[in-house]
Amino acid sequence: MQGLTVLAPFVGILSLIIAWLIFGYVKKQPNGSPLMQELEDQIHKGAMTFLKREYTILIFFIGIVFLLLGFGVAWRTAIAFVTGALCSMVAGYSGMTAATRGNSRTAEAANKSGQAKALNVSYFAGSVMGLAVAGLGLLGLGFWFWVWGGSPETAQYINGFAMGASSIALFARVGGGVYTKAADVGADLVGKVEAGIPEDDPRNPGVIADNVGDNVGDIAGMGADIFESFVGSVIATIAIGATLTITPEFLANFPVLQGLAPEAIKLKYMAMPILVVMAGLLSSFVGVFSIKLFQSGNPAGALRYTTFVAAIVFVILTIIITNSLGMPWGCFWAIVSGLLCGIAIGLLAEYYTSGPPIRRIAGQSETGAATVIIAGLAVGMVSTWLPMLGICVAIFIGFKAAGIYGIGLSAVGMLATVGATMTVDAYGPIADNAGGISEMSELGPETRKITDSLDALGNTTAAIGKGFAIGSAALTALALFVAYTQAVGLEIIDIKNPMVVIGVFIGGMVPMVCAALTMTSVGKAAFSIVEEIRRQFREIPGLLEGKEGAKPDPATCVDIATTAALKEMVLPGLVAVLTPVVVGFVLGPETLGGMLLGATSMGAFLALFMANAGGAWDNAKKYIEEGNFGGKGSDNHKAAVVGDTVGDPFKDTSGPAMNILIKLMSVVSLVIAPILAGWAGLF
Amino acid sequence: MQGLTVLAPFVGILSLIIAWLIFGYVKKQPNGSPLMQELEDQIHKGAMTFLKREYTILIFFIGIVFLLLGFGVAWRTAIAFVTGALCSMVAGYSGMTAATRGNSRTAEAANKSGQAKALNVSYFAGSVMGLAVAGLGLLGLGFWFWVWGGSPETAQYINGFAMGASSIALFARVGGGVYTKAADVGADLVGKVEAGIPEDDPRNPGVIADNVGDNVGDIAGMGADIFESFVGSVIATIAIGATLTITPEFLANFPVLQGLAPEAIKLKYMAMPILVVMAGLLSSFVGVFSIKLFQSGNPAGALRYTTFVAAIVFVILTIIITNSLGMPWGCFWAIVSGLLCGIAIGLLAEYYTSGPPIRRIAGQSETGAATVIIAGLAVGMVSTWLPMLGICVAIFIGFKAAGIYGIGLSAVGMLATVGATMTVDAYGPIADNAGGISEMSELGPETRKITDSLDALGNTTAAIGKGFAIGSAALTALALFVAYTQAVGLEIIDIKNPMVVIGVFIGGMVPMVCAALTMTSVGKAAFSIVEEIRRQFREIPGLLEGKEGAKPDPATCVDIATTAALKEMVLPGLVAVLTPVVVGFVLGPETLGGMLLGATSMGAFLALFMANAGGAWDNAKKYIEEGNFGGKGSDNHKAAVVGDTVGDPFKDTSGPAMNILIKLMSVVSLVIAPILAGWAGLF
Repeated sequence: MQGLTVLAPFVGILSLIIAWLIFGYVKKQPNGSPLMQELEDQIHKGAMTFLKREYTILIFFIGIVFLLLGFGVAWRTAIAFVTGALCSMVAGYSGMTAATRGNSRTAEAANKSGQAKALNVSYFAGSVMGLAVAGLGLLGLGFWFWVWGGSPETAQYINGFAMGASSIALFARVGGGVYTKAADVGADLVGKVEAGIPEDDPRNPGVIADNVGDNVGDIAGMGADIFESFVGSVIATIAIGATLTITPEFLANFPVLQGLAPEAIKLKYMAMPILVVMAGLLSSFVGVFSIKLFQSGNPAGALRYTTFVAAIVFVILTIIITNSLGMPWGCFWAIVSGLLCGIAIGLLAEYYTSGPPIRRIAGQSETGAATVIIAGLAVGMVSTWLPMLGICVAIFIGFKAAGIYGIGLSAVGMLATVGATMTVDAYGPIADNAGGISEMSELGPETRKITDSLDALGNTTAAIGKGFAIGSAALTALALFVAYTQAVGLEIIDIKNPMVVIGVFIGGMVPMVCAALTMTSVGKAAFSIVEEIRRQFREIPGLLEGKEGAKPDPATCVDIATTAALKEMVLPGLVAVLTPVVVGFVLGPETLGGMLLGATSMGAFLALFMANAGGAWDNAKKYIEEGNFGGKGSDNHKAAVVGDTVGDPFKDTSGPAMNILIKLMSVVSLVIAPILAGWAGLF
Repeated sequence: MQGLTVLAPFVGILSLIIAWLIFGYVKKQPNGSPLMQELEDQIHKGAMTFLKREYTILIFFIGIVFLLLGFGVAWRTAIAFVTGALCSMVAGYSGMTAATRGNSRTAEAANKSGQAKALNVSYFAGSVMGLAVAGLGLLGLGFWFWVWGGSPETAQYINGFAMGASSIALFARVGGGVYTKAADVGADLVGKVEAGIPEDDPRNPGVIADNVGDNVGDIAGMGADIFESFVGSVIATIAIGATLTITPEFLANFPVLQGLAPEAIKLKYMAMPILVVMAGLLSSFVGVFSIKLFQSGNPAGALRYTTFVAAIVFVILTIIITNSLGMPWGCFWAIVSGLLCGIAIGLLAEYYTSGPPIRRIAGQSETGAATVIIAGLAVGMVSTWLPMLGICVAIFIGFKAAGIYGIGLSAVGMLATVGATMTVDAYGPIADNAGGISEMSELGPETRKITDSLDALGNTTAAIGKGFAIGSAALTALALFVAYTQAVGLEIIDIKNPMVVIGVFIGGMVPMVCAALTMTSVGKAAFSIVEEIRRQFREIPGLLEGKEGAKPDPATCVDIATTAALKEMVLPGLVAVLTPVVVGFVLGPETLGGMLLGATSMGAFLALFMANAGGAWDNAKKYIEEGNFGGKGSDNHKAAVVGDTVGDPFKDTSGPAMNILIKLMSVVSLVIAPILAGWAGLF
């Protein structure tokens, strides 16, 4: 059975072929009027401009880290690092291409063929990202696993792949997060507030940048985030498997392993996560194509059912794998605990950003903006504990069922069907863009109704997706943390040692500081967009009045947002990469262990707090816009808009940045663990 | 030398006598016109009403916990618990009495004798709280240390004293915090915003409640908080000393101890903190009376110099103690590290709530309330890392200089001169009240100028005091955590064990949830005040128009705020007390150890975040009111007011509640440690 791991790269390639064929299918769909085609083109070009400029900067970063890793750690690790980074970049590029081609086609499908077809087109356009993420991840992991064989050193080299994925993810999330919110806030401030023209009005030069931002943040950023979790969870589990200590007590617990040589057991343990994600990807194929069965019904149900189908197939395949591979059944339960935890956290995120919490926030608008803010902050804070409890339960079950290895498996279980779940995530911004295009190209009210309903559904899937991304990031960071503690060769990391306590405190600082930096960045970047839009309204004659032939210049807005976002991603990136290195070498590997735990805890809490508070403010505003508490334009609405504006960087920039931060710091530590082993720090 | 500990209760009593004499001096001062006397009386009665009602509820709580501790732990612990609670209550009562008698006398001194005399009266009125806190703490600690002798069991029983102090502190901080902000927000919302009358206008029925709130929050709440830190740090250090393992390596490190029996060494280590706080209290006497030398000069300098005088005398006495007691010199450096860390954290809090950060926040008012909020949140987040680094440095120095015992000593060093620092803290609300009374009784502009400048200085000392309170809480919680890990008899608490990781995560939940609960409570309580003030304006004929004879009924506002505050303190209180007990018995003492560390870290970060963000918003608003960015009444000012309103529960309710939370959970764990020893949890 474990010989099947050689098939992993091929399943990965199969996924890419399917994604390619789906992309062909999407491109074949009609993309509407010349105006729609032009809008599509502008968004596409804006997105590609951003990616190209981002990747140009990243090439330097990758080159430098490649050399540092090669000379400092191992050349194989350095090569794996480059491939991890490239895979993440290719996944982002593929997903963005499909998404920015799918938007106008979704609008046209809504216009000509109705809701079922529009759902079909947007879903399949999103699936390109889902399948690319899972396919490239499995291709890279499987390839290196095959090249280097399943030995403990493999675990050490392959960590580089995860670090490559993490580095790209950080820049994609932070840069993308700053871009999307700067464009959004900038376009709204001048357009809606100052000039009094509607959202997505074609006269507004910032609208294209705003639509580009949806893709940059929610497709490229989210995709890189999930790609990193996917790869990180598998690699952590391989690393934990590779460093298992097979004692007689261990064997006594697992009769199924008795009689096997320790090396053989380790190989099984290292092969298991690869097989599990293979099964997950195969299940995702089934899940993705099952949309054909559901697309004519309720769209919300259809999306949900595709992930359920993938999950059920996955559970069946996992039973077969556990049995055929001769693994203890505890491994199966660990996987299931992660799968269920992922679903639970997603649903909790949906709860806290809808229903009673948002009605409570909306009600606070009666006494003004301040009480809206206080209520939203309180909702965000209180929303952290149940998801964290869910993660604790997953850790507990994973650990009790399969030891520390179970924690890795639990993360793998959460992420294995990522081909299907990421498809749903990527669907959201495509539907959002389709709505924008139908508004700007003035399609009829019937079409608007369809794109609006698909867009609204996208907001729900986005909330669930964000919760899932945080949960998987926390569990992956924890699995990487466990892998680090094994790899660095410390028998214990004792919190009775004050140096470990210091580590936990330092760990808490990094998310706090990075959250503050990214929030401030959005403000700065938005300000430069505001100035550019104001300039265009002032200098382009007839633009604001909507005169024939007066056209905005969206490209400069795209350019400004790109420059600002890329500039702002550098400092948080350096903080994240350098802190573990400095702490590890100056204060020693034990303090670094404490730091990772402190950072994971603080980062996960802040991510949940900010994502849920932001989502709740957003939906409280929408709830008022539906006519409650005075409706649109009332003082209550204005108070709710303040909450929504505060929530923007919370939920789309700083909150998501936490996901990457905690994984990146763990993976950097894991990569430098071999050098740190035996080192005691400078004091 | 260590025999001098028998003098501790007498030094404590001496402090109380001095406080009593000072109170006599304050009461002898003229308290102005009949109107001023009436206002003083109303505030005094309101404060006493709150205390009486609060203490009545607390008596039940104390009775129940007394029985639980008696039957569950030890009767001596239970008795010590009751005395700790009573000492805290007496300290709160004394301080409140002096403060509410000092306010009108300060106003009258400003009116008749000028600034120096006004400073003198308010400072000495505040010193009653400072000396009561330190005196009662030393009396209780010294008394029990003398009764039970310096044996390891003493440490166990005396923990009850700290738990008593903590329990009262929680209710005083949460109840007081809710009270003060509910009254403040309620009075402002109806008075300033709806009715358009100035702050502190005598027509507003909520103004007395607001002035009562200043005392309830910043005197009783702050005093109970500092009392708890003071007692907790000493007891933690005694407990660590009592559970030292005296190995040959230990002795090799400290030549000065060689040749002594292990028991003799332990006795020295247990006596040291008592002697140090005795020295601190004696130094505080010198510091407090040194105000006479400085009062004619710059008031800000005068207050600062009194604490410096106390600190310098304290350092000299500590050198003498370390030498005479024959303790390693590392102990001295540990104490100094705590002392300096306390000063540094206070100054950092001042920096983040003034100067460039607040100008940046004020500048964001140009683009509205949302950007003010974002900027303030970012300042709050970024303001956490340097103070936390300061705590890390103190831990590091304490640990390297004197082992884990040094962490306890570091906390003791920070708190020993509390008689002087708490005096400065208590001065603030007295000056604030004096300002309110001179406004309401329409004293001349010259007088207003003096009281305004003393009030402004009070805001600075409040920021420093809040920073100091957080820093000392974090260090005390950490010392209690170390004491817990020693007392529960675990050799190690290994974060490689996932059960400890689960503990860290659970620990993070509690501060998040309690912060959310307390923020929500303020809103609810403020709402009931708003309704009452509206009712009075509506039903009392001529009140709003200021007709002769139309008087508001402030007592009902006081009553409503009291009821609401006391109701709201119950849930967070239960969460804080029960979580460690449940975690300890269900998941075991290792998980509980992880939980304490997680809670201390999260609690300290949230406390700094909320206190500094709140302070920064407050001062950004004041900065605009000084005429910058459009000045009072401008749109910018309105945006800044939103920030200030959000900051109110941040800095005066939820933030300070964190201080208590982390200490209380640690001390509850320390008290149940003997029962938990050897227990492995249910799983």
